[in-house]
Amino acid sequence: MTLAKLVSEIKRKKSFLCVGLDVDLNKIPTHLLETEDPIFEFNKQIIDATHHVAVSYKPNTAFYEAYGIKGWQSLDKTIKYINTNYPEIFTIADAKRGDIGNTSTMYAKAFFEDLNFDSVTVAPYMGSDSVEPFLAFKDKFTIMLALTSNKGGLDFQGKELVDGQPLYKEVLKTALTWKNSENLLFVVGATKAEYFKGIREIAPNSFLLVPGVGAQGGSLEGVCEYGINKENIGLLINSSRGIIYASNRTDFAEAAKLEAEKLQNQMATILAKNNIS
Amino acid sequence: MTLAKLVSEIKRKKSFLCVGLDVDLNKIPTHLLETEDPIFEFNKQIIDATHHVAVSYKPNTAFYEAYGIKGWQSLDKTIKYINTNYPEIFTIADAKRGDIGNTSTMYAKAFFEDLNFDSVTVAPYMGSDSVEPFLAFKDKFTIMLALTSNKGGLDFQGKELVDGQPLYKEVLKTALTWKNSENLLFVVGATKAEYFKGIREIAPNSFLLVPGVGAQGGSLEGVCEYGINKENIGLLINSSRGIIYASNRTDFAEAAKLEAEKLQNQMATILAKNNIS
Repeated sequence: MTLAKLVSEIKRKKSFLCVGLDVDLNKIPTHLLETEDPIFEFNKQIIDATHHVAVSYKPNTAFYEAYGIKGWQSLDKTIKYINTNYPEIFTIADAKRGDIGNTSTMYAKAFFEDLNFDSVTVAPYMGSDSVEPFLAFKDKFTIMLALTSNKGGLDFQGKELVDGQPLYKEVLKTALTWKNSENLLFVVGATKAEYFKGIREIAPNSFLLVPGVGAQGGSLEGVCEYGINKENIGLLINSSRGIIYASNRTDFAEAAKLEAEKLQNQMATILAKNNIS
Repeated sequence: MTLAKLVSEIKRKKSFLCVGLDVDLNKIPTHLLETEDPIFEFNKQIIDATHHVAVSYKPNTAFYEAYGIKGWQSLDKTIKYINTNYPEIFTIADAKRGDIGNTSTMYAKAFFEDLNFDSVTVAPYMGSDSVEPFLAFKDKFTIMLALTSNKGGLDFQGKELVDGQPLYKEVLKTALTWKNSENLLFVVGATKAEYFKGIREIAPNSFLLVPGVGAQGGSLEGVCEYGINKENIGLLINSSRGIIYASNRTDFAEAAKLEAEKLQNQMATILAKNNIS
């Protein structure tokens, strides 16, 4: 996958929607629990119902690891299903990994080679040599946490440095100097739409993966006002619970389709308003 | 597991050695590659040969995930083998996880419940609500990155805040105020022995997991000079490559035993010098 291909898919579908596949067995329709692999069955139906308006899927690895080997098998089947049936989709392993150099290389192999995701999320705390091993993979992308949407996000990310700027801005600036940083994207939470202006001053062209729209209270319009980039759009807006748990009955896939189409409609309007086609 | 039990094991074995099980199929003896599960077979022999001088084992999850479902199975068998045969051992899943609240709970379930590790390593970048879900598990421990031993460790951890202190000190201070912080331990890299003095001023009683002795160049004596705590010892010193890859022939387990015993001998001397028994 290339970012040019992602941009062309966004224009074709008039959508920059990423659907988060955070599958909790306590929340999916009970009739699926009788199937051999409920998590995969749920994902398959969600994907089939939403792929026409989504450009990306993002399984969060925690929800698979929690079910041990079976969960890892469901993840494996899910990514294979997407890659086989919808190869135009940009896939994200939301794993938030990061370790010393040789260990990060092993994580990169796990997600880029063994599972064959297009991208993986990573945490920045361990610095350059914990992220650069991921960046070294050609046509694969590394999405680094910059500013997250959770309550404790600012605990450290918002800490003021001696030069007056918050830590997350330093993280963005520094990361853009790393080797192969053209393969770097950033996670920026939607609940802080007003921060996008400052972030675009530092990273005008970077793709930003934006969680927090919907269940976490972020506004799509707010994010796009400052976040959208007329060159390459530069935004992937993630929605998980608002789409996949729109219904917990047998109509869950149809309900997910309607919610995804609602978001896609809003995105099409925003793209048109920005003369992007 | 409780920390009191860990301290009693340290005193009984006169050792605060943690053996890192970072198993790379390219580095293990080739005769093992013919077995059904080479990673588990390697771990089993290493564990059997070193458990008398080690109080902890620390598989790094990256090295298992890189081999997909098979790797995850090897990890599962390894932790079950330790828990069944050596229940007195303090087990660490070196996973460096961390995500928003409900997601961190899923990771905690993966490592504390599904795999039944005593502890897991986490990254602090996402703040309080990314770590507190781990801390909520009784008799389970969360080992948070504070100051790491890699080259890029200081990229962000060493950033000077507006009040003049480096970020990692703020991370330590803040984390100690979190709910259930009695279940919190910290990762502090051995390559920076001189930093232990300042860290002990902030966290006098916390257990510190110390990687970087051996292959990464850290000094055991240097770390202990400032890091050891006469109350509860408060140190777990990790060695991975220096022990497990001491030989890559059929004598690998015997060679690992000798290297582990060397470290244990040095540790016994240090404990005696500090009148800890």
